[in-house]
Amino acid sequence: MSDAPAELVIVGSIGLDDVETPFDRREGLLGGSVSYACVAASFFVKTGMVGVVGEDFPEEYRQLYVGKGIDVSGLEQVAGKTFRWGGVYEDDMINRRTLFTELNVFEQFEPKVPESYHGAPYVMLGNISPELQLAVLEQSRGASFVMADTMDLWINIALEPLREVMSRVDMLMLNDSEAALLTGRRNMREAAEAILDMGPKYVVIKRGEHGAMLFSGPHIYFVPAYPVHAVHDPTGAGDTFAGAFMGALAKSGEVSDKTIRNALLTGSVVASFNVESFSLDRITDVKMHEIESRIDQLFRMISL
Amino acid sequence: MSDAPAELVIVGSIGLDDVETPFDRREGLLGGSVSYACVAASFFVKTGMVGVVGEDFPEEYRQLYVGKGIDVSGLEQVAGKTFRWGGVYEDDMINRRTLFTELNVFEQFEPKVPESYHGAPYVMLGNISPELQLAVLEQSRGASFVMADTMDLWINIALEPLREVMSRVDMLMLNDSEAALLTGRRNMREAAEAILDMGPKYVVIKRGEHGAMLFSGPHIYFVPAYPVHAVHDPTGAGDTFAGAFMGALAKSGEVSDKTIRNALLTGSVVASFNVESFSLDRITDVKMHEIESRIDQLFRMISL
Repeated sequence: MSDAPAELVIVGSIGLDDVETPFDRREGLLGGSVSYACVAASFFVKTGMVGVVGEDFPEEYRQLYVGKGIDVSGLEQVAGKTFRWGGVYEDDMINRRTLFTELNVFEQFEPKVPESYHGAPYVMLGNISPELQLAVLEQSRGASFVMADTMDLWINIALEPLREVMSRVDMLMLNDSEAALLTGRRNMREAAEAILDMGPKYVVIKRGEHGAMLFSGPHIYFVPAYPVHAVHDPTGAGDTFAGAFMGALAKSGEVSDKTIRNALLTGSVVASFNVESFSLDRITDVKMHEIESRIDQLFRMISL
Repeated sequence: MSDAPAELVIVGSIGLDDVETPFDRREGLLGGSVSYACVAASFFVKTGMVGVVGEDFPEEYRQLYVGKGIDVSGLEQVAGKTFRWGGVYEDDMINRRTLFTELNVFEQFEPKVPESYHGAPYVMLGNISPELQLAVLEQSRGASFVMADTMDLWINIALEPLREVMSRVDMLMLNDSEAALLTGRRNMREAAEAILDMGPKYVVIKRGEHGAMLFSGPHIYFVPAYPVHAVHDPTGAGDTFAGAFMGALAKSGEVSDKTIRNALLTGSVVASFNVESFSLDRITDVKMHEIESRIDQLFRMISL
């Protein structure tokens, strides 16, 4: 599918990450929401990336995208340094502290969606500021299904544009503590109903190692997390989940409760591979038959 | 089914509880693992209780058991005071602090299983000391499926007899932090495999608001928690889950992966009613058609 036009466009951050876990410590890893999401989606459909890097961005990382068949015509390289993030995970491999965040080239980023992406029916507004998400949305003329991811930072400092995003997308994804922060409701069912009232037809609440829940109108669907034997680096798990979900949904060619539920299970499985290694190591080398095998297993874990 | 012999026998604690939540505070509530478990099981099969109370145990609480068709011939009333427990829930309605525990009549308790219970094929060793669980097990001659519940206290102070219990039961139930404490493994899949190596054929790891997971050999099954709109008192949710599970399994008349999975979903639903009110208020007045309706809903929440 390498020369086909992108069916799915994803915008988000690209970063160089320093990650420390109780077992290991790595520097300058490829990270950022669009890196995880695009690689995860690339298993399923031709995916176009929108993002920005600085002059220091290693060519091998760019080649990693290209090697996965990702369309990088929306990947801008500008003067300055690439976005950097550093974090340390606690013993539970769940809670983490951010050590530093350097916006660098992200401070001046004005996302430009290439002409060749304009017909893409599926658009994922990955985790970046809602202002940037809106800028991409404005340029996504062919979009028929748009999903936005977000995080606590934007709820705290950019609630107004986030509400604008929410009123214009089909699906919002966020984690349970963020849903509580956004709505003031700790009960997930109450929080989801409040979010649905803000615009999106679908809300996916991510619950980390406990999976996710899909809400649409009165319907609820449980997405279990595939139980891995060992978590080595949870960074990017949510972005991987989101990207693989969008890729699998686009591949199905139809938006319905059934295709969404199926695609969410696929997202959960691809995310389970992601946490087994640092950075994108595992999701760049995992084989499609391995993904399919875990989907079969996960399906049996929810069947009577 | 009021005069039929018990098909399911449950032993556990009976207590008078003082419970404080961010919304309310109640004293002298009926509590204890066997109270919740027997009432939950009573919807499905004739259940025989084994427990002890003191002279101060209110007659109305005894009548509540009888009114649910529970066989109370194994309920001993002795000189002294009933077991008492007091706890306060934090704002999240999940974490709680124990304010006091008075063992009272429990200190000298020697459980006696009435002759009329001896043929019961299903036995639940509810959450009491493993020594008492073993005493009941010795007297359960007709048992063909035995499940034991436990808690962190016994892992910390009675590991030896707990290991003896584990080597002799078919299923162990415990929550995720207890599974980690028992095995030294935080990863639930690793912890469950370590527990299976200690004897039981089945392990159920409870995850509170996130439901539970069943492990048997290489097989895993996810049991979602039915998502309620508001939690008023989570006390006894695990005991209710366990009791309704055993009742539903006994009613099915067969122990297989399929009947166990179905019975776990039923347990999850009955527990969801329990958390909606203080003490046993909701599970004493809930109607069978309400339980069945939620089982249908929960089933749809895990179906593609």
